Amino acid sequence: MKLKVYADRISQPCRAILVFCKVNGIDFEEVEIDLSQKQNLSPEYKEINPMQQVPAIEVDERFKLFESHSILRFLACAFPGVADHWYPSEQFKRAQISSVLDWHHSNLRHGSGALVYYSRIAPLFGQPLNLKAAAEAEKVLSNSLAKIESFWLKGDGQFLLGSDEPSIADLSLVCEAMQLELLDEKVRERLLGQHVKVQKWIDNTRNATQPYFDEIHGVLFQVKESLMKMPSDGGSDETKIN
Amino acid sequence: MKLKVYADRISQPCRAILVFCKVNGIDFEEVEIDLSQKQNLSPEYKEINPMQQVPAIEVDERFKLFESHSILRFLACAFPGVADHWYPSEQFKRAQISSVLDWHHSNLRHGSGALVYYSRIAPLFGQPLNLKAAAEAEKVLSNSLAKIESFWLKGDGQFLLGSDEPSIADLSLVCEAMQLELLDEKVRERLLGQHVKVQKWIDNTRNATQPYFDEIHGVLFQVKESLMKMPSDGGSDETKIN
Repeated sequence: MKLKVYADRISQPCRAILVFCKVNGIDFEEVEIDLSQKQNLSPEYKEINPMQQVPAIEVDERFKLFESHSILRFLACAFPGVADHWYPSEQFKRAQISSVLDWHHSNLRHGSGALVYYSRIAPLFGQPLNLKAAAEAEKVLSNSLAKIESFWLKGDGQFLLGSDEPSIADLSLVCEAMQLELLDEKVRERLLGQHVKVQKWIDNTRNATQPYFDEIHGVLFQVKESLMKMPSDGGSDETKIN
Repeated sequence: MKLKVYADRISQPCRAILVFCKVNGIDFEEVEIDLSQKQNLSPEYKEINPMQQVPAIEVDERFKLFESHSILRFLACAFPGVADHWYPSEQFKRAQISSVLDWHHSNLRHGSGALVYYSRIAPLFGQPLNLKAAAEAEKVLSNSLAKIESFWLKGDGQFLLGSDEPSIADLSLVCEAMQLELLDEKVRERLLGQHVKVQKWIDNTRNATQPYFDEIHGVLFQVKESLMKMPSDGGSDETKIN
């Protein structure tokens, strides 16, 4: 199958898909959709993904798919050579990984995505910061990290659900957690410092997917560097995410 | 397999699972978790679902699962006799249904759930209304309904993705849309009135799952009736959903 991945590496779900493809030797063409240039809003990209978000994929120039978890599930099932641990065929294990992925939407993803956007990167997309929305998001994020530490990472496994091998859920959630690198160092320490298992799990997932993990996350650290040169306040209540 | 479904029928994801089981002849025991009595916060229920939300299932008194989309996927695959159209085994069709389900979390579900809660039912759970949060939610809901009308229901099919038979995505999204019955009639008309395809799709999904659809939704209409006796204003900005 001929695969195109439409992505911007600043987007955490995009990074999860890119790392997944590289780790599993899936041949693909990466098509950059620069969010800061609003390329996701172009009429051409609307033909690929009518929701005008990244990531999206195109297979054999005919089948299009968006929503990163659906893409990960599809790639794990449709491409030969993907090891079973990424999305186990055994139905009870698969259901539990699915449960993590569904839980993620309204928890870690919601909290982390909104906190980073409203407190740090909104100006990169032409929007003001919004410290009130950021404070709300931080509560969701804090609760989510506590649940990962106490429930999803309970037991002695290196990965979610007590597993000794990573799944697409580890990859999705860790790429989200990596976005916290963009936060002010003190805020990041306040959020992650108390969660020893979460920190170890991020390292484990990174180590299990090297060298691709660091390669794909390079852009994140570049953005972090440029953010450190910008003022971190200047909040306003006028920004909205749609 | 011996199945227990932990549910409160006022919760739209719970209704989707209950209708699915009944339509597909899956034998189960329904265990009521009364959200208005905070039974979801009991230590006993925390053993079933550590996230303390409904729905959840237990299989053979050993396997527990939460997140309604994961439960629907699991039931469709694990129980014999479920027709393929609910969650097709063909991987391209399955991926598209998965995409609808993932999209749902941050769109129709997010908008509808928050609008109904903040503008109508919060007092049933001991919380004040919050008209500002309701207005935010209405924007998300309005955009979501427009996307369903123009994209997910494009073509002549009776169901999402142009299909002539319902999938678990139809059931999940329609049970969510049914929650709008709890809104003030004028608000509901403002939101749904312009979306002819959405209205028809709700009817189609209801008709395809009778008599169970009406049976399971009975409690919704009882709550609607009691809400009509309550004042619909009295908003406050102090409510938060966690």
